[in-house]
Amino acid sequence: MSKLTHVDHKGNPAMVDVSVKQITQRVAVAQSIVELGAEIMAELKNGELYSKKGPVFHTAIIAGTMGAKKTAELIPFCHPVGMEDCKIEITTENTKAIITCTAKVEAKTGIEMEAITGASIAAITVYDMCKAMSHHIEIISTRLLEKTGGKKDFKFA
Amino acid sequence: MSKLTHVDHKGNPAMVDVSVKQITQRVAVAQSIVELGAEIMAELKNGELYSKKGPVFHTAIIAGTMGAKKTAELIPFCHPVGMEDCKIEITTENTKAIITCTAKVEAKTGIEMEAITGASIAAITVYDMCKAMSHHIEIISTRLLEKTGGKKDFKFA
Amino acid sequence: MSKLTHVDHKGNPAMVDVSVKQITQRVAVAQSIVELGAEIMAELKNGELYSKKGPVFHTAIIAGTMGAKKTAELIPFCHPVGMEDCKIEITTENTKAIITCTAKVEAKTGIEMEAITGASIAAITVYDMCKAMSHHIEIISTRLLEKTGGKKDFKFA
Amino acid sequence: MSKLTHVDHKGNPAMVDVSVKQITQRVAVAQSIVELGAEIMAELKNGELYSKKGPVFHTAIIAGTMGAKKTAELIPFCHPVGMEDCKIEITTENTKAIITCTAKVEAKTGIEMEAITGASIAAITVYDMCKAMSHHIEIISTRLLEKTGGKKDFKFA
Amino acid sequence: MSKLTHVDHKGNPAMVDVSVKQITQRVAVAQSIVELGAEIMAELKNGELYSKKGPVFHTAIIAGTMGAKKTAELIPFCHPVGMEDCKIEITTENTKAIITCTAKVEAKTGIEMEAITGASIAAITVYDMCKAMSHHIEIISTRLLEKTGGKKDFKFA
Amino acid sequence: MSKLTHVDHKGNPAMVDVSVKQITQRVAVAQSIVELGAEIMAELKNGELYSKKGPVFHTAIIAGTMGAKKTAELIPFCHPVGMEDCKIEITTENTKAIITCTAKVEAKTGIEMEAITGASIAAITVYDMCKAMSHHIEIISTRLLEKTGGKKDFKFA
Repeated sequence: MSKLTHVDHKGNPAMVDVSVKQITQRVAVAQSIVELGAEIMAELKNGELYSKKGPVFHTAIIAGTMGAKKTAELIPFCHPVGMEDCKIEITTENTKAIITCTAKVEAKTGIEMEAITGASIAAITVYDMCKAMSHHIEIISTRLLEKTGGKKDFKFA
Repeated sequence: MSKLTHVDHKGNPAMVDVSVKQITQRVAVAQSIVELGAEIMAELKNGELYSKKGPVFHTAIIAGTMGAKKTAELIPFCHPVGMEDCKIEITTENTKAIITCTAKVEAKTGIEMEAITGASIAAITVYDMCKAMSHHIEIISTRLLEKTGGKKDFKFA
Repeated sequence: MSKLTHVDHKGNPAMVDVSVKQITQRVAVAQSIVELGAEIMAELKNGELYSKKGPVFHTAIIAGTMGAKKTAELIPFCHPVGMEDCKIEITTENTKAIITCTAKVEAKTGIEMEAITGASIAAITVYDMCKAMSHHIEIISTRLLEKTGGKKDFKFA
Repeated sequence: MSKLTHVDHKGNPAMVDVSVKQITQRVAVAQSIVELGAEIMAELKNGELYSKKGPVFHTAIIAGTMGAKKTAELIPFCHPVGMEDCKIEITTENTKAIITCTAKVEAKTGIEMEAITGASIAAITVYDMCKAMSHHIEIISTRLLEKTGGKKDFKFA
Repeated sequence: MSKLTHVDHKGNPAMVDVSVKQITQRVAVAQSIVELGAEIMAELKNGELYSKKGPVFHTAIIAGTMGAKKTAELIPFCHPVGMEDCKIEITTENTKAIITCTAKVEAKTGIEMEAITGASIAAITVYDMCKAMSHHIEIISTRLLEKTGGKKDFKFA
Repeated sequence: MSKLTHVDHKGNPAMVDVSVKQITQRVAVAQSIVELGAEIMAELKNGELYSKKGPVFHTAIIAGTMGAKKTAELIPFCHPVGMEDCKIEITTENTKAIITCTAKVEAKTGIEMEAITGASIAAITVYDMCKAMSHHIEIISTRLLEKTGGKKDFKFA
């Protein structure tokens, strides 16, 4: 028996009704990993990359935070839910930049798509800030690491 | 000698001046790959997934196209450049959805960030449409495949 | 005695203060009707129109839902109120497409403008998707059908 | 033989490629008509309605112009095309407000969807400004009146 | 001991976590003053300036209100907080236009940045509406006048 | 004889028609000055302020650049014109932060409102980043310093 096909009779796209859900405090953590390559990573100084467009990770953190606030505008059936915290941290490991976005809200739904969108926009911004040096950049992973406060908690196994 | 650090004396973030560049016809192709897992992919019928929010790939194509048009709003130092074509195709391979976004513009700069943003927003939308079934979804790759029309052509090796 | 002119002394435009209102569960239903003509409607198959830009009604439903979320950005004195559900259905009757948008929120104000905006943007999208075939398309009606949860319930007589 | 179904093999939604089109000077005129009813229209003074939110038509003209500039953000497959002129005029005829939006651009595509969106957002704003008095308001017509400068000129017969 | 440098160990930009704060009724009042010069101000009639783009202050009030609703989209670390009232008043004093923006919300944070943004966008709009006559226009002051409902009340001394 | 009142017969607000203008290379420079007070400015190190939300001027430069790209969305009758360069520099003088925004575009109109909006949003962001320390902050000047490429060049005397 198919799990995905709780579709309405015509298979039309639709938002999920969350009006009867309880308000809970919700937290979600998402991660994007950008493979920058040795050439770009050789420029790393004190945990920051300085490109000709400026500090890469600082700029990515700001863009990711602003992007997270635009989630409901970007993803068709996301509910607009506010945002009470959005922290983006970027660390490096060998030639990789590891972006972690933690988002919080007290609401009937959310906040995992906001965390994923924040991490993704930060990752795309890292790409944009570094591409003058090399286009051999790849975002090799974007996923939800964990979330609490919704119907059931989740941790990526 | 550092290649990345053509920074101004204070290392401040800044847009690149493209005012003196020539207008050329530009094309860029980017790709995102989403690992959906066997459980979700078992629902595939005629190249489309039907979730309880509706047709997954159709919705992702629309969201990705609209997202590509928002690139300059999302990425701090991207120039607003218009868009003359944006095609998003989604195919599947085993348990993966492969999203390809081709964008075109006749302008002084662009269009690679638009292609990457379009593919990324489509990938995040695939995630959002399928997450009621499983959160074990991972966007395992986002990169520029190729571009022509700019300072030099590029093909991901 | 004039009912409309509770204006301030200078007749300036202004938002209405809703800060002291109670939070209630609100539902509004709006409808747009698009006269497509016989030529376009001859293409109807299984309740959907397929234009060269893709499935017309699916695309309109997505655009309408996203448009409804932008209501406070489009209409000057609308309060931003979130959205807990937004369902758009499109049926056909002879040469007409009938778009019904139902929106819900638990808030101090709203949600009728969101329903009207959602129906309208869906209708404009139907136009855009079909215009390669004929420009003799007319949106012949957009109105609020009913609402509950506000100061007084309403049903279009 | 079906005219609408020049669809790609999978029937996916997609933007139309305009990259090879010539740049032309384009003009489009769209019209929305709002039936306000006798009660509201009794408030008309010197061609303007003053509601408790302020001057209705002035506000609608501003909202419509700003809405027209958002067309490519609202309608999924509209190309972003700039705007060189956007004039919205509102006249009254008995109990109707007649909104005419004329938009111009020198570009490869456009500007009819911008004219239609501008007229529509102005009409919805008229509704919003007047609804404190009566909800028996209906937008009874929205259509393209004429356009020039594209593949072929059009005049609504 | 430095008061500003409660920064995290890497000095990265970040949103402040407001998730544990109490919801309170908040009011903020901000003011912008525009020096228009004698030439422009000679056109003043009944408290309004009519430029070739239309009524200056009416237009500025609408733009400022819409701009205030966009605060969280414009200011990187502002929380999206809704808005329950936003009143903009414009008076004149000699050759100055004095813009006062009062914003209200019941929320965990806000509403001072919204008031400042609303006053600022109204001031920039006054500039735009008048610049066909003279570019010797200066916004000579923008500040928060007072706020209540937050951690501590404030009044500009 | 009044210079401002080239208004249409009803005094309605309206965009200016630029369709017949020539495309020229345009540059505009605007400036905002923020009075931060001695307490905040005591935190200055190497030309940057570090607040608990992160580096103030870096963040303001990014927000200002992104804000400049939103000008046509914020100011009702601004034409959307693209942007080919936008440089924001922030220097300090005693207790003042001096923000200079230079914007360029090759177009029929623009780019002064973009420069003014960019400087203003950067100034508001400086306020937001510093307000945890003191609310006695005032934006004491915002104006166009100079522009070239339009109907006539301008320099603020």
